[in-house]
Amino acid sequence: MLEAIAEANLGHVGSYGADPETERFGELVRKEFGDRATGFPMLNGTGANVAVLRAMARPHQAVICASTAHISIDETAAPEAIAGLKLLTVDTPDGKLTPELAATRLADPADIPHVAWPVVISVAQATEVGTVYTPEEITALADFAHENGMLLHVDGSRLANAAASQDLGLNEISLGAGADALSLGANKNGAVFGESVIFADPELARGFEVLRKGSLQLASKMRFVSAQLNAQLEDGLWREIADHSNSMARLLADGIEWTEGADLGQSVQANIVFMSMPIGPARKLVESCAPNAPLLFEAGEAGVIRLVCSWDTQPEDIDHFLGLLREALPADH
Amino acid sequence: MLEAIAEANLGHVGSYGADPETERFGELVRKEFGDRATGFPMLNGTGANVAVLRAMARPHQAVICASTAHISIDETAAPEAIAGLKLLTVDTPDGKLTPELAATRLADPADIPHVAWPVVISVAQATEVGTVYTPEEITALADFAHENGMLLHVDGSRLANAAASQDLGLNEISLGAGADALSLGANKNGAVFGESVIFADPELARGFEVLRKGSLQLASKMRFVSAQLNAQLEDGLWREIADHSNSMARLLADGIEWTEGADLGQSVQANIVFMSMPIGPARKLVESCAPNAPLLFEAGEAGVIRLVCSWDTQPEDIDHFLGLLREALPADH
Amino acid sequence: MLEAIAEANLGHVGSYGADPETERFGELVRKEFGDRATGFPMLNGTGANVAVLRAMARPHQAVICASTAHISIDETAAPEAIAGLKLLTVDTPDGKLTPELAATRLADPADIPHVAWPVVISVAQATEVGTVYTPEEITALADFAHENGMLLHVDGSRLANAAASQDLGLNEISLGAGADALSLGANKNGAVFGESVIFADPELARGFEVLRKGSLQLASKMRFVSAQLNAQLEDGLWREIADHSNSMARLLADGIEWTEGADLGQSVQANIVFMSMPIGPARKLVESCAPNAPLLFEAGEAGVIRLVCSWDTQPEDIDHFLGLLREALPADH
Amino acid sequence: MLEAIAEANLGHVGSYGADPETERFGELVRKEFGDRATGFPMLNGTGANVAVLRAMARPHQAVICASTAHISIDETAAPEAIAGLKLLTVDTPDGKLTPELAATRLADPADIPHVAWPVVISVAQATEVGTVYTPEEITALADFAHENGMLLHVDGSRLANAAASQDLGLNEISLGAGADALSLGANKNGAVFGESVIFADPELARGFEVLRKGSLQLASKMRFVSAQLNAQLEDGLWREIADHSNSMARLLADGIEWTEGADLGQSVQANIVFMSMPIGPARKLVESCAPNAPLLFEAGEAGVIRLVCSWDTQPEDIDHFLGLLREALPADH
Repeated sequence: MLEAIAEANLGHVGSYGADPETERFGELVRKEFGDRATGFPMLNGTGANVAVLRAMARPHQAVICASTAHISIDETAAPEAIAGLKLLTVDTPDGKLTPELAATRLADPADIPHVAWPVVISVAQATEVGTVYTPEEITALADFAHENGMLLHVDGSRLANAAASQDLGLNEISLGAGADALSLGANKNGAVFGESVIFADPELARGFEVLRKGSLQLASKMRFVSAQLNAQLEDGLWREIADHSNSMARLLADGIEWTEGADLGQSVQANIVFMSMPIGPARKLVESCAPNAPLLFEAGEAGVIRLVCSWDTQPEDIDHFLGLLREALPADH
Repeated sequence: MLEAIAEANLGHVGSYGADPETERFGELVRKEFGDRATGFPMLNGTGANVAVLRAMARPHQAVICASTAHISIDETAAPEAIAGLKLLTVDTPDGKLTPELAATRLADPADIPHVAWPVVISVAQATEVGTVYTPEEITALADFAHENGMLLHVDGSRLANAAASQDLGLNEISLGAGADALSLGANKNGAVFGESVIFADPELARGFEVLRKGSLQLASKMRFVSAQLNAQLEDGLWREIADHSNSMARLLADGIEWTEGADLGQSVQANIVFMSMPIGPARKLVESCAPNAPLLFEAGEAGVIRLVCSWDTQPEDIDHFLGLLREALPADH
Repeated sequence: MLEAIAEANLGHVGSYGADPETERFGELVRKEFGDRATGFPMLNGTGANVAVLRAMARPHQAVICASTAHISIDETAAPEAIAGLKLLTVDTPDGKLTPELAATRLADPADIPHVAWPVVISVAQATEVGTVYTPEEITALADFAHENGMLLHVDGSRLANAAASQDLGLNEISLGAGADALSLGANKNGAVFGESVIFADPELARGFEVLRKGSLQLASKMRFVSAQLNAQLEDGLWREIADHSNSMARLLADGIEWTEGADLGQSVQANIVFMSMPIGPARKLVESCAPNAPLLFEAGEAGVIRLVCSWDTQPEDIDHFLGLLREALPADH
Repeated sequence: MLEAIAEANLGHVGSYGADPETERFGELVRKEFGDRATGFPMLNGTGANVAVLRAMARPHQAVICASTAHISIDETAAPEAIAGLKLLTVDTPDGKLTPELAATRLADPADIPHVAWPVVISVAQATEVGTVYTPEEITALADFAHENGMLLHVDGSRLANAAASQDLGLNEISLGAGADALSLGANKNGAVFGESVIFADPELARGFEVLRKGSLQLASKMRFVSAQLNAQLEDGLWREIADHSNSMARLLADGIEWTEGADLGQSVQANIVFMSMPIGPARKLVESCAPNAPLLFEAGEAGVIRLVCSWDTQPEDIDHFLGLLREALPADH
């Protein structure tokens, strides 16, 4: 990534995207997602999500998403306050929407104009709890969306991990499976900064330059964003990085399974691992991990800890963590 | 109400609220809700709710409410799009929030700035499903809100019905019990148009003139709104009207209880009655009521019909409806 | 107007516009503005303007208007905060835009996405300074707008006065002359409350129900709004009222012309009169008019007073005012 | 800058600002701007401006600025659409506001709630036309703002150039002279990306974390932003860079003065040069500079070209440009 930035720094080029790196990004997007795909470098993940939702829906409309969705719980009401949208959330067993679950939030035309009418379904691939959608599942959701006059958005801040874990391409599990727009993460796959938005159809992308700028997401020196995005897309570097973090997650999961007193909370499909254990040791463990303590969710006597493996997690980091885990657990285990 | 408007029409007066009727409204508000109470005539119920929430919360903050709340399901995402707020909804057994239920949507300070932080609890009195809060229940919610750095808002579009059904005053079940602000309905209690917002403390009302105007709720000929609000507050006309609609609801509920094949879905505490029956007859009934068909919620084989009695519902309307109900039900009942 | 409300009160009808008065309103709109015209009752003038602009432009776009425009100086930044629009203002000699003046605010495509792109021209008919547009002037602006990919909006809060003063119909000086949408005032022409929005083409009106509700402008008992709008449209009552206030304005203007020490500031074309006089007497006059003091604009040694004649202004009101004026002026005049 | 990013990349640190670079940024801000100064790394200039204005003003309020202000003409109505503000613009002779000019946009309390009330004055230091404010001028504006219940914001995307050109510190010409908040640019002074917001008083900064996140400006890997900001603040690198670009601008200005047929449009006080010349040669020149063509403003027969010198402009770039200029001019000059 740093090499990519350094190379982008040579020579004088146009600002706001009129530069060779951003042009190359457009080519790489078309190569990866098809000839009609149109890509836009963005500044951060929340910005990418909010701006793309503004392109897909107008104020006073609604978006159906899982109640665990990042757009619902981790974006400070920016989809509401900036895009003017209502999020219609659905509880899910595993962070994944299905047509059946989404159908529970459809509205009755007789309730127009009183209800906020859903025009978008948004899913995270991989989800916030580490599960992934197969291409067939994405297609089923896209078909359901289109049959009901909606569009399908994929929040792909971890798309690389979802693709690598299924040994599939980025396109096969998102736009290629029928989704209309994609927030494609770079940040969580090793980039210094930067994300992107990709539309399946240039028609939907019309005027998106204005929404990107208006959503405070236009980089003046865009080449530095594009260069990093390119570095991930060229030669499949994204897969290499994601394979690494996914395999580290499996290594971690294996270690937890062998540890008495701790349990895996969810099957590990990408680079996120949920571990449940008694609340006392859980708190002790989290404390001993400072200053990089993982998230702990408390539920009465039990604690659930969320562990994310990244591009730079090493086997010795896993070993070190498993050591802290064993120390945190009571001696009789 | 029409008499009130006609009287307000005599003589030349200032616009935008500089008139004797609006001054009298201020006096009546202080008489009803205490010396510090500050009232503002508004144009409609959604406008009153959105404007008062804008005074109680800033964009990117959150409001805790029941998942049946009018602000959540019947206001076209206006709280989101206009006020920039996230609504944190809670499923309830009877449309009523409790401190325990509200507590499930509190956030962890460690999640700032990612989560939308709740700063208001909003309850409807009476609720959208026809139940009412006692003064003690309002006080418990107000205490819980204040202990957690929040304010309590009461959506009182049916406050008169809630007060009349408990033989209490408007204040005792809202601001007087600890709530900070109130949307006080007039529309659903016989007014031609107009609602109001009442703040318990003038400090919270500071600058509300700007939010009322900015929220598109300022009446130029405000005297006509104020005159109707006054007519309801003077001499307890609100109670007379609400007593009437509540008693009509009880009459209707009695009739339904005596009808085989139909059941009351919820105890009747104000002027709203929910009736459940098989879906076939339910559809037939709704159709036969056109053009004033009540709302029908379908749930598999069962249908739930929502019936609202108003200031002008008469015993013969009830009889007529019960007749249509019996016709819609199968003969063997 | 009160008769109209009283009549609308008889019988039980649907809410939110499913009533005979609102249906009749649709017919009257088509009769007045042509078969494709589509009308929506609204609650107030600012609400009508903001909602219609939301239908004509998306957030981050711009509206060209006169710097004296009501939407720019009298609507508390609601077009900005609610509709997300920038107003590109133009100084004018007489409150009226021309294609030449509007052209000064066009933007260069090379500046996309940095500039807010103008997509609407908005003019007031009559203007806020009492001048009127001829049909030809509206057509010239409409043509200019359409040639430049924009729409033309007419803020017609005083459309009746503008039409009456030219002895023309409402349509001839607005939609019929090429404008795309119209905020049609009722309030300033004698109504108790209520305004409306009229679109020339139903295509532009698509989804406007949602924007009306979301913009806090949906009347639940819409029949009372519609009844007043209808009363103005039926049998040309609007013209009768407007003719009256226009002729009162001319009477007032004549009186001012005969008064030494006071001057007419602008030719009187509708029901607004601007009078200039030395600042001392101007202040004295305004004070003596309380509590219904007219607006005074101070400019060094000179004062300009804005006088509006309304449906209920009587010749004796004019005489009374001219008496106060003479008293305010120094004896030597 | 790249070295700074590379160093920030070593070791594992907290995200969203819990890292040593961001802590160091806080120290450097206090060292430069005083003990109470509070700094926040941001993603881009428009984002910094919009977020800081959201902290200084509420929706439906107003900001007084020059009609040439970046926030008014180059930010796609984001201050309007995202912050809900009206910009009250003032024409200026040289891009600079004065108390007298700002006073022309003050409002009359009698016009509340109809007007958008100004609560902030925003000035650019250096301005968009290359002029600079002295400390005394900033103090005069700050005093005027405070006397009228307003705050003073400095858009310092070119603050380094303004400070270097006057041989003063960053603080002396912004917060130290009385301003309340500052958007401090890094981007235009050599950074790869990143800007910041600095508040003079921590009280005004309360809750800004939420507005930064909600305004889509929170960097997850904030250390990479902070590292660049730090590199500029440590050891006065900002001054070195700004001195360089300012001196290149003077070199360019000298060259233009020596060229017959071209004139300097404005005295050169920082790193921006305006050159006027006949429109024909101006167009030819702009064309010959592609793909990095400067901005050309056309005004009848004359053209004004805006030239910006940056951290990497070299004397040979100036020579090359002056060569193109001479070629573009008619031979008889």
